This record gives sequence, C-alpha cells and structure tokens, in this order.
Amino acid sequence: MLPTIDWDDGEVVMIDQRKLPSKEVYVRCRTAKDVARAIRTMVIRGAPAIGVAAAMGVALDTQLATEFYRTCDLLAATRPTAVNLFWAIERMKRVFAGGMRVGRSTAELQALIDAEDVANCRAIGRHGAGVVPAEARVLTHCNAGALATGRYGSALGVIRAAVEAGKRVAVYADETRPFLQGARLTAWELVRDGIDTTVITDGMAGSLMRAGMVDVVVVGADRIAANGDVANKIGTYTVAVLAREHGVPFYVAAPLSTIDLSTPDGSGIPIEERDAKEMTYMGASQLVPEGAAVWNPAFDVTPASFVAGIITERGICRPPFAESLKHVCDGNQ
Amino acid sequence: MLPTIDWDDGEVVMIDQRKLPSKEVYVRCRTAKDVARAIRTMVIRGAPAIGVAAAMGVALDTQLATEFYRTCDLLAATRPTAVNLFWAIERMKRVFAGGMRVGRSTAELQALIDAEDVANCRAIGRHGAGVVPAEARVLTHCNAGALATGRYGSALGVIRAAVEAGKRVAVYADETRPFLQGARLTAWELVRDGIDTTVITDGMAGSLMRAGMVDVVVVGADRIAANGDVANKIGTYTVAVLAREHGVPFYVAAPLSTIDLSTPDGSGIPIEERDAKEMTYMGASQLVPEGAAVWNPAFDVTPASFVAGIITERGICRPPFAESLKHVCDGNQ
Repeated sequence: MLPTIDWDDGEVVMIDQRKLPSKEVYVRCRTAKDVARAIRTMVIRGAPAIGVAAAMGVALDTQLATEFYRTCDLLAATRPTAVNLFWAIERMKRVFAGGMRVGRSTAELQALIDAEDVANCRAIGRHGAGVVPAEARVLTHCNAGALATGRYGSALGVIRAAVEAGKRVAVYADETRPFLQGARLTAWELVRDGIDTTVITDGMAGSLMRAGMVDVVVVGADRIAANGDVANKIGTYTVAVLAREHGVPFYVAAPLSTIDLSTPDGSGIPIEERDAKEMTYMGASQLVPEGAAVWNPAFDVTPASFVAGIITERGICRPPFAESLKHVCDGNQ
Repeated sequence: MLPTIDWDDGEVVMIDQRKLPSKEVYVRCRTAKDVARAIRTMVIRGAPAIGVAAAMGVALDTQLATEFYRTCDLLAATRPTAVNLFWAIERMKRVFAGGMRVGRSTAELQALIDAEDVANCRAIGRHGAGVVPAEARVLTHCNAGALATGRYGSALGVIRAAVEAGKRVAVYADETRPFLQGARLTAWELVRDGIDTTVITDGMAGSLMRAGMVDVVVVGADRIAANGDVANKIGTYTVAVLAREHGVPFYVAAPLSTIDLSTPDGSGIPIEERDAKEMTYMGASQLVPEGAAVWNPAFDVTPASFVAGIITERGICRPPFAESLKHVCDGNQ
C-alpha cells in the first residue's frame, strides 16, 4: 500500500507525483487552496485520487459553513475531465445540505470516501482478474494504479489481483507522454510490488502487438459516458485502435464514480488542454524549438465500440453498455 | 538549405543532431573512425544522411589502399537497419574495385553521392507534391527532412515541394520518442523554412485523426523490402494502422537507395535495438525507475498493405509493390 494521499496531524499529505521515480517528496496541504493547487499542478493525478483529494480539501476548510460552497467551487475548477472530482464534491454537498455538523461530518465522509476507494479497487481487481490469462502479457497506458486512486489501483488493481491469484503476469507500460505516468509512476509502483514490468514508448505499442506480445489491454478511465464511450489519458484511443487491429481485448477498469450517466456520449465530455510547456521542456532540456505550435489535450475519447468490457466494483459491464452501465449504476449513491 | 553534413578543409563537419533545437553545435570528423562514432551515437541520423556520411567517411580514410576494406567494414558496422548505408559503401567498393585512384576518386564519388541525394530529394518532392491537397494537414513521423538526407528531405521534401507549389500546408509532427526527432528536428527545420508546424506526442495521432485533422500522412523509410514492406522509425506502424482506420492515405517518401530488392519482405529486415538509456533518462531527469525493463527497438516494419504509395525520385510506386518497385529500380545503378 502506497502513501498516495493521507491525513497527518490535521493536514493532507501527498506524495509529489511530478518528482517520481527519482525522488520521494511529500507535499503538505493546510488549506483547500493548497489542495486545489496540488490537483491543478499534478502533484496528485488520476481520476479517483483527485476525487479523494477534493473530499479531503473540502474537509480541511469547512470549519466555517460560510466557506463551504466557495471551497467546493475552488476545488471543482481545478480540472475538467475526471468526473470523480465532481462526484466527490457533490457527495460532500449532500452531507452539508443534510445539515450535519460541517467540520466533523465532512472529515468523516472523506475518510469514508477514502476507505470506499480501497474497497472498490479491491473489488475491481477481483472481478477483473478473470480477464487476465494464467500466463499473460498485459499492456497498460498511463497510471491507473495506487498512485491514481487511494491505494490499490483500478487497472493496476486488476493486474495486482491477477498476480495475487497466482497468475504469471508481465506488464508492458506505455511511457505515456507528455507527463510520463507510465514510465515514472506505473513502473515505479509495479517494481515495488515485484511485478515484471517493461516500459515502452507510446509509439511501440503497435509493433509490440504485431509481434504477438500482448494478450490483453487494461486501462483506467477519467469519465465514462452513458453509452460506454471512455475518456482517458491521451493516447488511450490509439491503443484501442491498435488492440482491435490485432484482436487483443481492450478493457477499462474504473469505479462507478467514474461513470457519468448524465453525459450521453463521449462528445459531451470536456477535454482539458494543458500547458504547452509539458511538451516543450523536460527539466532544463528544450524539446521543441521556438516558433513551433504544440497541441496538448490531456485526454482522448475511445468509442464504446472498441471496448470489450468495463470492469467495476460490481462486476464487468459488457456491450451494449447503455444497458449494462445503467444496470450496474442502479442503486449507486 | 541546412548544413547537415559537409566537407570543410579536408574534414567532415556535421551539425550535432543530439543537441538541436536548443544548440547548434558542429562535430568535426578527421577519420572514418570519427564518422563511424558519429553515426553510431546519432550525431547524424536518417537513412540517406547516414549513406552520405559513410561515403564521406570512406573518402576520408582511403589514402592508403590497404585500409580501404577495413574502413568499409568499420562504417558498415555502425547501424544495421538503414540500407542506404550499405548501398553507399557498396558503391565506394565498386569504384575501388574498378581500379581508380583511391583518395581522389572516392572523394569525387562522395561528392557525387551528395549531389545526387539533393537531386533525388528534389525529384521526390516534385513527384510527391501531387499527393498533398491544395489545403492540407500533413502528419509526419520522425525526421525525413534536410537533416536526414543531404539537404532537402524525402518526406519533408514532399512537404517543401507542395509549399513551393503554392499549396497551403500545415504540418503535424509526431514528437517521435525516444529520440524526439519530430519535436527536435522536424519542427526545427520546418520552422526555419516558415512552414506552419504543430508538434504532438506520438499517442495523440489517433485523437488527431479521429477529429478529422489529418488529410495525408507522409513518412520516410530506412529500408523498403521487395514486396513494399517498409522499415522506418519506431512508431511508424502505429501511425499506419491509425491512418487506415481513419481513411487517411499513408505515403512513404524515399530515394531508390532505400529500396532493398534482395530482402523479399519486412521479416528479413534487421531491427536495431538501442541502449535503454535513450528511454530511461532525459538529460539529468530519470524517467524510468531502477528495476523496470525497457524495450527499445529503433525501427518497426509497416506491411505493404498499409501503404498507399512509395514516392521515389522516379515517380510514385503503387500497389502491387512487388511489380512497381522492381520496375522503378530497373536500370538503377
């Protein structure tokens, strides 16, 4: 279990994911404003982890009821794509509207959200392990691991559960430019768990699949529309096209809080564009000359038709997703 | 016209392509050994440019006839995939076997190879400009430009010729991890020429095509087998799969010296694997943790079935390539 985000002495502490894998540095947040900045600058990232962080941020700042909605707005404005952020904030708002004592109840709720997240990821792992063959080469993109959730991971939860079930799993991690979540974060946490991990550049995935070296693809999600279209880290759609071309099943692992039934299809999912500097520089190294433009969408949308199944804590949704997603969400708070 | 490689005062001078775009540094080679090191360490890269460099390397060292074959072997051992290297060396050997005076004649021949390269790229541009619409968004991968050839470029030669013909061309350059030839080199030389250039990460190409933002793909090649299978920079095959999925024509631009009729298909093309460090570090920044493996093939093979046409200095070869490539090579020295 990794210390992605935690309470410590009335403050929120997060591992700085921008510094991994070379440095383990922790960032302390005293206020919701600190948490908002940490989300915006990607100290913490990953849809479920952003939700947990937002809940903690709300809990930090709500000693005064007058500040509550302002704090919620501040945190909601950090990043637009991951729906878990809004889900967590809405939950906090419902508790608040229910008239519970703000300071105490929000702290209790955020602890609940955190604990639920771990339980959900474990359940995703149990359900998802079945899609991983007994001897499997699994390709994943970005980081949908312990660092992207509270603890166990969604896509990496599936991999962890398969390993725990005694399967022989080798993981290929797309490095995932520009932020390199695959190379820096997925490889870091899998290596710590002793799981066989090989990093490839994003462009190598086609060649790897053509060589027959991938049995299954499992990725996370930032928002899943009602029809099963999946927004996830930029590059995911490319992987999905490659998977279909090579007959490799493409799975998405995500908690129900990632499913947004109010968005009919992927065209309604807002896609964040991030600063060009994420692409033009790496530390002090200039990678793109002055005068060249840069396009830096942080996410893309994979149409439902490319998805073999969506692995949730309540089981695997299969096509047609309009039905299976609605069914699995029924009764969800 | 860029100073990719040139003679200066009896030495070979190359721009150091590892340092672009932030620094314009030149490397001087006094011996063939220096040239071999420059090719191996990617001071100079790009199949045609490697051929020119090898010819110059042979010319540098052949004052003594006894050294001739050893020099050829040294240069031939630098990189395995680009066939232009072996083509250039074989040409030098034929001249030598013809009994011409070594020092002088090889220098003349290398000048001829250099001049031919420019003429060939210009001709590739003329033939290829027709595949670029009057208003076009062109996606390219890696650098098949002035820096990859003697002067004008193959894939970028097509783009330059289209611009010179008055077409409105916007270029999308895949950044091309791990060496970043697209971000660092293609963007650098196109911006110098005033051509509208936008850099994307390799993973974005799918999303870009799905958004209808690419009209045609043009890439270079390191070796083309007799059946039209194309070895090119790693990631090219991924682009080809995406192009077919989205109905975007995928063209390859390369001089005849890149066509290897003695290799029946792509399975016979040796694919160089390069040092893991190209992927695990960027300057001082560690990108991959200790304990994770890395796969770093420098090239991949795109099957002929994905290729709309191969643009050579003698015209565009169309499928079936077994016939059209043989035809275009007939009479080639």
